[in-house]
Amino acid sequence: MIHQETNRSSLVEAVPNFSEGRRSQVVDKIAQAIQRPGVRLLNRTSDWDHNRSVLTVAGPPAAVVEGLYQAIDVAAQEIDLFEHQGVHPRLGATDVVPLIPIREFSLADCVTLANQLGARVGEELGLPVYLYEAAATQSARRNLADVRRGQFEGLVEEISQPHRKPDFGPVQVGSAGAVIIGARQFLIAYNVYLETGDVQIAKIISKRIRESSGGMLAVKALGLLVEGRAQVSMNLVDFQVTGLPSVMEAIEQMASDFGTRIHSSELIGLLPQQALLDVASHYLKLPSLVPDQIIEYALHK
Amino acid sequence: MIHQETNRSSLVEAVPNFSEGRRSQVVDKIAQAIQRPGVRLLNRTSDWDHNRSVLTVAGPPAAVVEGLYQAIDVAAQEIDLFEHQGVHPRLGATDVVPLIPIREFSLADCVTLANQLGARVGEELGLPVYLYEAAATQSARRNLADVRRGQFEGLVEEISQPHRKPDFGPVQVGSAGAVIIGARQFLIAYNVYLETGDVQIAKIISKRIRESSGGMLAVKALGLLVEGRAQVSMNLVDFQVTGLPSVMEAIEQMASDFGTRIHSSELIGLLPQQALLDVASHYLKLPSLVPDQIIEYALHK
Repeated sequence: MIHQETNRSSLVEAVPNFSEGRRSQVVDKIAQAIQRPGVRLLNRTSDWDHNRSVLTVAGPPAAVVEGLYQAIDVAAQEIDLFEHQGVHPRLGATDVVPLIPIREFSLADCVTLANQLGARVGEELGLPVYLYEAAATQSARRNLADVRRGQFEGLVEEISQPHRKPDFGPVQVGSAGAVIIGARQFLIAYNVYLETGDVQIAKIISKRIRESSGGMLAVKALGLLVEGRAQVSMNLVDFQVTGLPSVMEAIEQMASDFGTRIHSSELIGLLPQQALLDVASHYLKLPSLVPDQIIEYALHK
Repeated sequence: MIHQETNRSSLVEAVPNFSEGRRSQVVDKIAQAIQRPGVRLLNRTSDWDHNRSVLTVAGPPAAVVEGLYQAIDVAAQEIDLFEHQGVHPRLGATDVVPLIPIREFSLADCVTLANQLGARVGEELGLPVYLYEAAATQSARRNLADVRRGQFEGLVEEISQPHRKPDFGPVQVGSAGAVIIGARQFLIAYNVYLETGDVQIAKIISKRIRESSGGMLAVKALGLLVEGRAQVSMNLVDFQVTGLPSVMEAIEQMASDFGTRIHSSELIGLLPQQALLDVASHYLKLPSLVPDQIIEYALHK
């Protein structure tokens, strides 16, 4: 097992997805199991049609990993994939567990953490584990959809094939299925509204800035019409590669080429403090801004 | 006594100045007295020539006020103004106590707090108390320098005169002198460097933007030459009146009139998170940004 140095300010987030969205007592048990001392449950969402629940937790790395282990154990005991039905694709009782660096902890540290958790789940709970995204051990496993292809039912058939060999745990599938564990950067969901109702402009700008069509790295974008206004709806999947100021300036420039301007912007959900510091640092030309200079942060350390 | 509602997220800062900068054991005792449960000592600075120490503390309003009361008590017992010598002007053992709103607490709340503390210091410790700045009861007492005019020695002579009547406490001065208590906004010390070594440009810009010469409200500014670069050195004494984006844009405009640009900026000390949110909100045109959207903040609530 790999050990790593973490300091007492280190924080990670995890967003485990469980294949149970109907029996709320089961979700209660999982949610209780995950809340170790220091671990904060930030969000809990269950969906009947998907028959799936998503928990968002954050805290010190060791505590979060312990909570995840306990939750995976409870889910494996309570959820039977042979009985499970739902709209959302899934491979196991605990379907997927992304680990996300928040503070004084790197993506590489989260990869190490994913390996620690995966090894323990494989050995002690006897579940097959696949590592994905930044933690993937082969390029074919980076993409979650690829790992989940064929779902639980397909994996039961295919697990003995070489290309489906788990990264940890037994080469056999029980009623709890397999667990997909990985590491990724924090995703910022950010929308920019234009001073126009012409959705085509938002669509063209979106196509130009998103990575998949040769735009900016780590940017996903879609042009939408929202309440009569053209909107560039984005996911910044690694704000340290492409952050808020960069997309703002790119969109501002393109909008001006179309004779329009940015009207306003909107942040969906949370963002790490570092993303905010990056914004201030960029626009104020203030290279040395550090979290300790925020009085509330200094107080809570 | 006035009572007010505070919620558990309310935070105030206080920066009490004590007339002792040489006997470190006395400062130790004061610093111990101020650290009630919940009160964080953020900074401690003592100066031999000034013979003065400045403590910066923050915490929940009730705890901070209790800590200040205890510290004022210790200082009154340990410091004898009849013996005190130092370069810095002073009126008492605890010379001045500004209360500063940080979070979920307004300047008006701090004025109430200053009155509560002043009443208690006057009644229970028997010290004359003057209220200043936002807490001043007369316009002649708003300015700290005016309240401190003549220093301790002058006050001993003049305290029975009507214009020197204390806001709380006895009309007589003992060895602990008087305490000046007030409320003000958080002060942001912010410097902007220009891409020129011509200090005259910084001096002209400073004169144009500072309130005292008809510039921007709540801005103090001075043009300096720092390490070969022209610097506009500012105190933003109420960032909710004039914040970082406003001074940046004003300086940028004026610098461009002189054929130069902003090189970089620098923040001295701390700033409240709200000031940072205001920067992001301004440049991202993101009106709805709230502290709860910062993940570290959401975690610590």
